[in-house]
Amino acid sequence: MSQHEEFMLEAIRLARQGMNENQGGPFGCVIVKDHQIIASGYNSVLSSLDPTAHAEITAIRQACQKLQSFQLTGCTLYTSCEPCPMCLGAIYWARPDRIYYASSRKDAAYAGFDDEFIYREIPVATEKRVIPFVQLKLEHARDIFREWINKIDKTEY
Amino acid sequence: MSQHEEFMLEAIRLARQGMNENQGGPFGCVIVKDHQIIASGYNSVLSSLDPTAHAEITAIRQACQKLQSFQLTGCTLYTSCEPCPMCLGAIYWARPDRIYYASSRKDAAYAGFDDEFIYREIPVATEKRVIPFVQLKLEHARDIFREWINKIDKTEY
Repeated sequence: MSQHEEFMLEAIRLARQGMNENQGGPFGCVIVKDHQIIASGYNSVLSSLDPTAHAEITAIRQACQKLQSFQLTGCTLYTSCEPCPMCLGAIYWARPDRIYYASSRKDAAYAGFDDEFIYREIPVATEKRVIPFVQLKLEHARDIFREWINKIDKTEY
Repeated sequence: MSQHEEFMLEAIRLARQGMNENQGGPFGCVIVKDHQIIASGYNSVLSSLDPTAHAEITAIRQACQKLQSFQLTGCTLYTSCEPCPMCLGAIYWARPDRIYYASSRKDAAYAGFDDEFIYREIPVATEKRVIPFVQLKLEHARDIFREWINKIDKTEY
């Protein structure tokens, strides 16, 4: 068995554990650096009453605490299922090197998880989405971005 | 001034506060139910070393704890800037009724925030993304979804 498969089997083991403990849906994730698992997670949306507590988000937050960095350079993420848009976004902000996933978003949809629906909503015009996103233009709203650009002591990320 | 504008000005005030305290980028959010702010947040990616600590994620998690629910039915979310894909996903999982945003993703891009880049990556074939998403097919990976479907004591979400 390849090391990739071993890490993926651990992600799937976590998915099954979280599901059987009624923590949340059947999703698990591990993050690997230098051939070692440095963080892991399973979906705990139900037990933590936190809709953002997906396996990938949980593992990313844990890995960043471990590395004391908001970037996961040099890390590989193994997830039991293709990430939903929220987790995809989190991955892009955390910037690991590479993602491996086992099941696809279609498999998740078959089990009743809305990932595919959210993907379809993204290109829809903001006001026409199922959850409408309405722009409220305020005269000085954008000033804050100019303040950010001009801020001398900022850390860019 | 409309109540919508008042809530949005509070989101912008939080954005500025977080930026000035070096918590993170200039982004703020409030969540309103029954005309009252029940939760709020600003970006604290830098101070918490958590790439998922965007204003919307922080406010959603807080609102869910307050309501003791993983769903934000009946809530409206006001955010100083159009949500990034991660926060859009979180919004769809939390299901508030409506989103108001002030600045657009183009304004954010102007200030150096990668939201627009992440939006462009989503429709790209998974293996061809800047961060490659590679499917590692394992023979029994999908079994867990059948186990979920057959699980008698599950809470669907």
